[in-house]
Amino acid sequence: MSDFQSTIKETAGLIETALDEFLPSREGPLGRVADAMRWGALDGGKRLRPFLVIAAADMFDCPRARSIRVGCAVEMIHCYSLIHDDLPAMDDSDLRRGRPSVHKKFDDATAILAGDALLTQAFEVLAEEATHPSGAVRCRLALELARAAGKDGMVGGQMIDIYAEQKDFDLAGIEELQRLKTGALIRFGAVGGGVVGEGTDDEIAALTAYAEDLGLAFQIVDDILDATQDAETLGKPAGQDAEMDKATFIKLLGMDGAKSKAADLVDSCKAHLDRFGVRAAPLKGAADFVFQRKS
Amino acid sequence: MSDFQSTIKETAGLIETALDEFLPSREGPLGRVADAMRWGALDGGKRLRPFLVIAAADMFDCPRARSIRVGCAVEMIHCYSLIHDDLPAMDDSDLRRGRPSVHKKFDDATAILAGDALLTQAFEVLAEEATHPSGAVRCRLALELARAAGKDGMVGGQMIDIYAEQKDFDLAGIEELQRLKTGALIRFGAVGGGVVGEGTDDEIAALTAYAEDLGLAFQIVDDILDATQDAETLGKPAGQDAEMDKATFIKLLGMDGAKSKAADLVDSCKAHLDRFGVRAAPLKGAADFVFQRKS
Repeated sequence: MSDFQSTIKETAGLIETALDEFLPSREGPLGRVADAMRWGALDGGKRLRPFLVIAAADMFDCPRARSIRVGCAVEMIHCYSLIHDDLPAMDDSDLRRGRPSVHKKFDDATAILAGDALLTQAFEVLAEEATHPSGAVRCRLALELARAAGKDGMVGGQMIDIYAEQKDFDLAGIEELQRLKTGALIRFGAVGGGVVGEGTDDEIAALTAYAEDLGLAFQIVDDILDATQDAETLGKPAGQDAEMDKATFIKLLGMDGAKSKAADLVDSCKAHLDRFGVRAAPLKGAADFVFQRKS
Repeated sequence: MSDFQSTIKETAGLIETALDEFLPSREGPLGRVADAMRWGALDGGKRLRPFLVIAAADMFDCPRARSIRVGCAVEMIHCYSLIHDDLPAMDDSDLRRGRPSVHKKFDDATAILAGDALLTQAFEVLAEEATHPSGAVRCRLALELARAAGKDGMVGGQMIDIYAEQKDFDLAGIEELQRLKTGALIRFGAVGGGVVGEGTDDEIAALTAYAEDLGLAFQIVDDILDATQDAETLGKPAGQDAEMDKATFIKLLGMDGAKSKAADLVDSCKAHLDRFGVRAAPLKGAADFVFQRKS
């Protein structure tokens, strides 16, 4: 196991434990929404966004107790978006991470409410004093996360994904879609780590540049995996882009061109971190991991 | 027109103008979610919750520029909850404020996303520096709003409303449902006004007690109106409680008992504000208004 693999496994474990505490099981009528929130948020994947928070914050010697909370907040947003995206009215996906999506396990109303509650709790977690002693820092985190998640970020990207005539998209169009739909939260991961770690403006700008390249590389690799892997490996339906005749990086650049662009982005995103020296190794490892991942 | 009626009309106008600025129309694919957010949030009713924010904050000479922002935040939460509640998977309501609900005007996916975006933007508005110079105050507002809106507040109440066997509820059961589903945001209105106005702990406690009695009175009157008014007057379907055999304050207390309990609550909620003298007149007027309203 590479250093990076053991690091992301460690941070995923920290996030799992913290989310489990933030989302306790309950008795009575409120137990159903609590269970649905747990189903949608626990046992979840690589926890890439929280990893970025923690790895970025570690560079500034930020106490883990703080960066874990910021990581949980962005993961709550990510998980709520998956719950709502999977609904029949949206992507209508029955499978998520290899098991029934929240609306299949529970029902549509519960999935809507569990998503709403996770979205709300993300801001509760950030606003609490345990996240950072400075109210100004906590507010900046909440502001960055709201902008990343809202109508000019992730939600806007989801709107474009559903309604725009994507088969006619050019490269600028799919890059814009990516920047909003998946890029905004990845960007928040690195930036949120810099903010909670109290990096300088220059340092946070470097993290922003890193995350923007990383997010784009991540999406290109996603397109490659959708075209080349089976549903069992991915833990979700495969081959959907071609079936829906979506414009993808592969359709526009060809498979070799897409791979080459992703490799270039991985190089450039790592270069933005050179100023941090060896402390940037985990974040640079994340870039290599994104490029090499199989699911 | 009473003093109270002209005051709430004035504050509703201020909120309408501010929401219009927070939610600009847009061109392109993002225009659809912007339009849906505007449809769900503008031209909306009495704006009771923002009125409570502004009227409470006024008692502490808080600049209106601040309290209007807090009022917009709670109204965004209220409007998102109506958009999601109206969805076919939830209450399946085609009519809201006398016109098509968001999912009828647009579609289910757009309604889900517009609700998510309004919910997110509420926290963006609170976190921005224009809401209050102190980050600690802004975070306290965000924390209070998240707790009022989330799984232990409004969303939890909605869960109970959908899943609990309400026909068997006793008085404690429907009071708990009310406290969560509608009470939590009304409570935030008064408390948020006290927080942004930098009231003392004792003053905020008095506002809390006022809002808890007011919220319960509001729900009892809602039950009375559902049983006695027609859909045209209400701007939404009427007589639904009896049709669904729900436990209501009327079913448990009788019509006279419910009216008498509401009147008692209006008296007690006003008494909590005596410490504020004549400055409390607008909030006391709101209590009389809640009791006397016809829709």
